[in-house]
Amino acid sequence: MKKLVLGAVGAGRIGKLHTENILAMPNATIKIITDPYIDEAWAKSHGLAYSLDANDVFNDNEIDAVLIFSPSTFHAEHIIAAAKAGKHIFCEKPIALDPALIKQALSAVATAGVKMQIGFNRRFDPDFRHVRETVESGAIGDVHMVRVIARDPEPPNPEYVASSGGMFLDMTIHDFDMVRYLSGLEVQEVYAAGAVLVDPAIGAAGDIDTAITTMRLTGGALAVIDNSRQAVYGYDQRVEVFGSKGSISAANLTPTRTSLMTAGGTVVDKPLYFFLERYQESFRIEMAEFIQAILNNTATPVDGAAGLLSIQVGLAAKASHEQGKPMQVDYS
Amino acid sequence: MKKLVLGAVGAGRIGKLHTENILAMPNATIKIITDPYIDEAWAKSHGLAYSLDANDVFNDNEIDAVLIFSPSTFHAEHIIAAAKAGKHIFCEKPIALDPALIKQALSAVATAGVKMQIGFNRRFDPDFRHVRETVESGAIGDVHMVRVIARDPEPPNPEYVASSGGMFLDMTIHDFDMVRYLSGLEVQEVYAAGAVLVDPAIGAAGDIDTAITTMRLTGGALAVIDNSRQAVYGYDQRVEVFGSKGSISAANLTPTRTSLMTAGGTVVDKPLYFFLERYQESFRIEMAEFIQAILNNTATPVDGAAGLLSIQVGLAAKASHEQGKPMQVDYS
Amino acid sequence: MKKLVLGAVGAGRIGKLHTENILAMPNATIKIITDPYIDEAWAKSHGLAYSLDANDVFNDNEIDAVLIFSPSTFHAEHIIAAAKAGKHIFCEKPIALDPALIKQALSAVATAGVKMQIGFNRRFDPDFRHVRETVESGAIGDVHMVRVIARDPEPPNPEYVASSGGMFLDMTIHDFDMVRYLSGLEVQEVYAAGAVLVDPAIGAAGDIDTAITTMRLTGGALAVIDNSRQAVYGYDQRVEVFGSKGSISAANLTPTRTSLMTAGGTVVDKPLYFFLERYQESFRIEMAEFIQAILNNTATPVDGAAGLLSIQVGLAAKASHEQGKPMQVDYS
Amino acid sequence: MKKLVLGAVGAGRIGKLHTENILAMPNATIKIITDPYIDEAWAKSHGLAYSLDANDVFNDNEIDAVLIFSPSTFHAEHIIAAAKAGKHIFCEKPIALDPALIKQALSAVATAGVKMQIGFNRRFDPDFRHVRETVESGAIGDVHMVRVIARDPEPPNPEYVASSGGMFLDMTIHDFDMVRYLSGLEVQEVYAAGAVLVDPAIGAAGDIDTAITTMRLTGGALAVIDNSRQAVYGYDQRVEVFGSKGSISAANLTPTRTSLMTAGGTVVDKPLYFFLERYQESFRIEMAEFIQAILNNTATPVDGAAGLLSIQVGLAAKASHEQGKPMQVDYS
Repeated sequence: MKKLVLGAVGAGRIGKLHTENILAMPNATIKIITDPYIDEAWAKSHGLAYSLDANDVFNDNEIDAVLIFSPSTFHAEHIIAAAKAGKHIFCEKPIALDPALIKQALSAVATAGVKMQIGFNRRFDPDFRHVRETVESGAIGDVHMVRVIARDPEPPNPEYVASSGGMFLDMTIHDFDMVRYLSGLEVQEVYAAGAVLVDPAIGAAGDIDTAITTMRLTGGALAVIDNSRQAVYGYDQRVEVFGSKGSISAANLTPTRTSLMTAGGTVVDKPLYFFLERYQESFRIEMAEFIQAILNNTATPVDGAAGLLSIQVGLAAKASHEQGKPMQVDYS
Repeated sequence: MKKLVLGAVGAGRIGKLHTENILAMPNATIKIITDPYIDEAWAKSHGLAYSLDANDVFNDNEIDAVLIFSPSTFHAEHIIAAAKAGKHIFCEKPIALDPALIKQALSAVATAGVKMQIGFNRRFDPDFRHVRETVESGAIGDVHMVRVIARDPEPPNPEYVASSGGMFLDMTIHDFDMVRYLSGLEVQEVYAAGAVLVDPAIGAAGDIDTAITTMRLTGGALAVIDNSRQAVYGYDQRVEVFGSKGSISAANLTPTRTSLMTAGGTVVDKPLYFFLERYQESFRIEMAEFIQAILNNTATPVDGAAGLLSIQVGLAAKASHEQGKPMQVDYS
Repeated sequence: MKKLVLGAVGAGRIGKLHTENILAMPNATIKIITDPYIDEAWAKSHGLAYSLDANDVFNDNEIDAVLIFSPSTFHAEHIIAAAKAGKHIFCEKPIALDPALIKQALSAVATAGVKMQIGFNRRFDPDFRHVRETVESGAIGDVHMVRVIARDPEPPNPEYVASSGGMFLDMTIHDFDMVRYLSGLEVQEVYAAGAVLVDPAIGAAGDIDTAITTMRLTGGALAVIDNSRQAVYGYDQRVEVFGSKGSISAANLTPTRTSLMTAGGTVVDKPLYFFLERYQESFRIEMAEFIQAILNNTATPVDGAAGLLSIQVGLAAKASHEQGKPMQVDYS
Repeated sequence: MKKLVLGAVGAGRIGKLHTENILAMPNATIKIITDPYIDEAWAKSHGLAYSLDANDVFNDNEIDAVLIFSPSTFHAEHIIAAAKAGKHIFCEKPIALDPALIKQALSAVATAGVKMQIGFNRRFDPDFRHVRETVESGAIGDVHMVRVIARDPEPPNPEYVASSGGMFLDMTIHDFDMVRYLSGLEVQEVYAAGAVLVDPAIGAAGDIDTAITTMRLTGGALAVIDNSRQAVYGYDQRVEVFGSKGSISAANLTPTRTSLMTAGGTVVDKPLYFFLERYQESFRIEMAEFIQAILNNTATPVDGAAGLLSIQVGLAAKASHEQGKPMQVDYS
């Protein structure tokens, strides 16, 4: 079996997760992983070669594809370096917060003629994929409305918030991609109503923690996302697509399907709490499909444009919230 | 509109319930209700004529049909009196605990050529009826297994137990009828494993409070009932019919469909607690259908034979428990 | 028992429904029902006195309270007539579409010192009431978001649409009241995104059939309603209130709780289809509580102000949709 | 990290599954796998050393523990060989169908002082484990009844049936273990009602395909298992434990949590169909815990006695079915 040779740039939480998933795959190998602050004990325990310098990946002729797990602020730079080195690219979201910079990165990829996949892992979640496939099958007819509920179990700390680009670009960006993915439509107009209800420190850092965002999609359908930075009962991730022939929806995943009935009530499980648990399967599948796409020379399942478009929608949402009015999405 | 003229014998809890239901029906009227211990205030507040003597019903020429809500020990006697008077009959279960006496009552009914309906109200529950209709439609193919879960919220007091005929004839009799109704098959053999786990006083009174009863049905299908006199979480009433093409089941009814998700868990409703709440709709429908059957001169939906057959199954279950072996049901 | 003497004005579909419910109640009587197009056969079959002239109600000294079931365009006029006659009032929603007219009616009621209840029947639905009680209990903490899903099974005909005041005043008005009821908060700002996706004839009649409406509530919480005039699977009526300590939600009601598992899939019930079925219990309870409030001289559970406030929110929603921007609600 | 060195005997379907799971574990290595009919391509693709002779495992001094995945008829022989070689043992169920032979194997294990774990994988299913933990916690009080539903999606072929020991020893044995595990109690008496309803060829081969088995447990609790060889809708695996303070139950697992609502009905997922999918997680966990137990020198989570006791219950069930009466379990 031909094995794809990979090099990874970045070994933080998400880098480790993907790396461990790849180690269990028969058709890929990680030649080297780099990180200026590499966790050596972890790398050794997994028998991984490592270094501090990302160039050890870009300059290695045996490496077919680069996995960019570095901090977001380095994504565009690392994409450009990988593209120039003629390597295929998997890059975590977001490519960048600035559309101009994203376009530069996409241009480098196009010029090099390499493949790129953006890490919108939720598209690989079996439940959401089933929703998308049902929509595509025509079973619910024309899409009229898309609803996404996305609530984190715990708010980030305010320092993180300040550097994240704000809730719409950091958190809701996943949901904008989900609206696009589930509906197969593009967002034309956005109205975002945000509020600080969870933690005043988030407000003091210039961000919000609660929002309802309404969108008009191409062809006239509507969409709405509700977000909170704190659902104390767990990670609340639900979607529904409603159409002319019916509705398809996905409920939360829970640790078990057990029910306890006592004099005090019937208790069933809360949603899975931590995003790495909730999306464990989606992370595994997205990487497996990236590797397949490169080995088979087929299109990657999430292309670079997805990375640009979600940011453009996110910027419109941010502007809408700031200006208190609906905004057209600027796709120029 | 022709109104059916009814006379009621017995005004205890179940008599009052049926009477109040009938008062809201446009096609029937209760001319008189009798009970040696009649609750006069109740009768007056509903504008009902009443007396202490059941003969005031049997002897009234204007009365078309008699509703027998008297204590079980009087059922057979009252059926025979009503039949002799040429009146149609609705009788609460059981007709009697002794098959010979039941046969006498059925014979009086047959001789008089009147209609009779036995109060197996659960057959009129919309959920169970939907299960039956699904079985009849062929959607689950041939019946292979029937499962009934029937657990009371609270045990009866031990004095009641002593006079009730025992759990199989008092409580499980409803479930034997349900097995017959859902499957459309008859019970041939019974094995009952009983235990005293809820209340030792029930054991001291010579009865049991927990049982698993297995049946072989005509044609070879199997059935099982599990009973408990105390499900602290409410009145647990579930059924399933499993067949060659699938399974149809009915879950418990609950007061609402709400869910509360908090850090402590997700809480949904317990089953409805009280049998009059749980079977409120079935009591109403069974009486409406009785009245319709008499007015339209069609067959009643539960005939007298159902009252005999369930007792015969119940006696076999009782014998099986006492003798510790499976018993053929004696239908002679 | 003291019986409340009622007179009804209007005997269309909703008038008949309420009247039949009242006929089964022990503590009220309907002395007369009036309608210029009275269905005489129906009135006779229920033993009701009737006439063509609403004044036969207003002028009857024995009548304690008036039930206004006339077409919406007569509501304000009938309220004023009833108030002047010193009678308590139950009036179906909406009082009127014009706030000035509503205020006139409320003023007449205040001057007369009579009680009034507006027909927001959904507040009496046991599920929604349980949601409200849970919010009030503090179990979900501070309210952060309210979500209402309200989708009709079938679109109205376009002629009706033209005279109805438009979707926000005809259909969403129930949901605005629900947001107020569930949260205990008032709506300050509304942004409504409407679309014509179900039936172009509705668009031609100047209305919309699909909308997502976002609200800012007093204290900063957010709310969102999604509406469609056509959910082919049934009457979709769901709510959720999300707060600092959790979430309470109500799912759809279904005819049964049965599940059919076959090789083709697991099939459970669709939501109840028809609003009279779905809200059967709420219609019964709202009338029972009105009668109680009058008999006991306590406050009615939905006062006249509720009728004004929902219209004011609806008008803001309509303006927001027309002008394409969020609107403050005008409560002046 | 100390790695456990394993040798595997048998590389059929279950052997391959466990082997692939172990390959992804950091704390164990498979030195060799043997099978007289080894799938060489599979072994090579996983980089596994292999041979045709089980003695290459037993005789290898570096091997700490033996994984017995050979056909059931060889289990006892391979246990004895492994024990004599001083190796710890994981053995798939059943040890043997003959209690005398099982006792010989257990005796060899005891003499050698090695650890043994029997492959009752369902105990490691997170849902069933949660049920057990809830029972142990006292949340449902004293155990009164245990219910197990275990229905296969497709019947085995009749040749397999003939050699399997019959349904009670081949299929229900898992459920007997589940009753023991969930309740923490032993089976004293069994009554099994079996039938041939799925496939007459199974009957012709001397076996049954449908059964309801009732048990009396130590202390008086009751238990019931219903089995079918063919649930066309998937692999039906549900349990409930009912007690003095409530009930804890586990529903089926499904591929997704999606719901499709259309005019035709609401469709949700069927249960997972294939046992390797349904119990994927339990197979992984049981092996991980075996490896941990050996490395940490702690007790294995399912000991050899569990293998003997389930067979003894199964033999009583078989005898009960054949003789048509309840049987005491022979634990001598």
